[in-house]
Amino acid sequence: MQGTKKISSAVIKRLPRYYRYLGELVEGGVQRISSKELSSRMKVTASQIRQDLNNFGGFGQQGYGYNVKYLYDEIGKILGIDRTHNMIIIGAGNLGQAIVNYTDFEKRGFLIKGVFDNDPQLEGKEIRGMRVRMMNGITEFIRDNNIEIATLTIPKNAAKEVSSLVVQAGVRAIWNFAHTDLNLPENVIVENVHLSESLMRLSYTIANREQSEHE
Amino acid sequence: MQGTKKISSAVIKRLPRYYRYLGELVEGGVQRISSKELSSRMKVTASQIRQDLNNFGGFGQQGYGYNVKYLYDEIGKILGIDRTHNMIIIGAGNLGQAIVNYTDFEKRGFLIKGVFDNDPQLEGKEIRGMRVRMMNGITEFIRDNNIEIATLTIPKNAAKEVSSLVVQAGVRAIWNFAHTDLNLPENVIVENVHLSESLMRLSYTIANREQSEHE
Repeated sequence: MQGTKKISSAVIKRLPRYYRYLGELVEGGVQRISSKELSSRMKVTASQIRQDLNNFGGFGQQGYGYNVKYLYDEIGKILGIDRTHNMIIIGAGNLGQAIVNYTDFEKRGFLIKGVFDNDPQLEGKEIRGMRVRMMNGITEFIRDNNIEIATLTIPKNAAKEVSSLVVQAGVRAIWNFAHTDLNLPENVIVENVHLSESLMRLSYTIANREQSEHE
Repeated sequence: MQGTKKISSAVIKRLPRYYRYLGELVEGGVQRISSKELSSRMKVTASQIRQDLNNFGGFGQQGYGYNVKYLYDEIGKILGIDRTHNMIIIGAGNLGQAIVNYTDFEKRGFLIKGVFDNDPQLEGKEIRGMRVRMMNGITEFIRDNNIEIATLTIPKNAAKEVSSLVVQAGVRAIWNFAHTDLNLPENVIVENVHLSESLMRLSYTIANREQSEHE
């Protein structure tokens, strides 16, 4: 993958959104799209689109536009979803169940191999055909199933201990929904989803709008 | 709130994290903290912390550090969580239930006033003492209860219609978990939580690490 090394993190953050729009175009049978057309769909300037996509070695051709499927596949490769990732979910509460039940993740190659909890009342409960397992077998499970990603949908006070445990067992990446930062070795990849923080950004925007409305 | 107008969006994005750490310090009875101490807890440089917090008119004093409670309250005001926000949840599936059951949002002033769904089988089901309501009464409910924020935990194909409906009824802000962008009037505030995109950022980082490991 030449030319992909110095892509700014701002561009990287935008790639999943391009991927989503391109995926919808692929599903709709659209073969080519101009930066202008894509611009009006995505509400981003055409020049931003050209700049962003030029990072990947110029998929666009003057007067022809982008080849949708090609661009979709290439961005998929860059995002690392041209292959599968084995994943477990730790925490079988509502949020964990929501993730197991959301089948789009599997379509993107994130294969949910197991669901874990420490509540004995949940043991054996079926979620989308998968039985909830207890935490005591988790180390072996991670090793035997080549688990790469652990999703933490557990309370914050348990998150540090559990994340250390699964990293020791071989997990390389944590998708963290617990409302705390995990202090893990640098080589472990952590992607946080802090819902409270998202909600505070929302209320910030509300407060700020009101302020400017009253000025 | 003087001096808060030109804060960069990068700083704004970091504020909820400061707020979370300061909240933990308040709970732990800590009254003052130096930028250096806060730096080592938050794994951010002390100079970054000073720069960020200077945006709000210099809460820090040389040799004294920050007054934790004062800073916590001031950031809370800036984030607009010094007052309450009335909120509804639309979509009573697992994700909607997870949000209703997560009591921390209420502690921050986000009051969940109602839960809605269009599945008659869910009508009257209780989630944390709240009965699921059907969509047909939603317009009146929004008006009667001064609902400011609607959380959408519904499939993407329903999201556009439902968001237009609630905006017409008076909702000012949407917390959107549906995997699509909503095309709403400019004055409507939208905060997206696109979980698939978060997972793709994770797989991008995995792919990129592997690449540099093999070079």
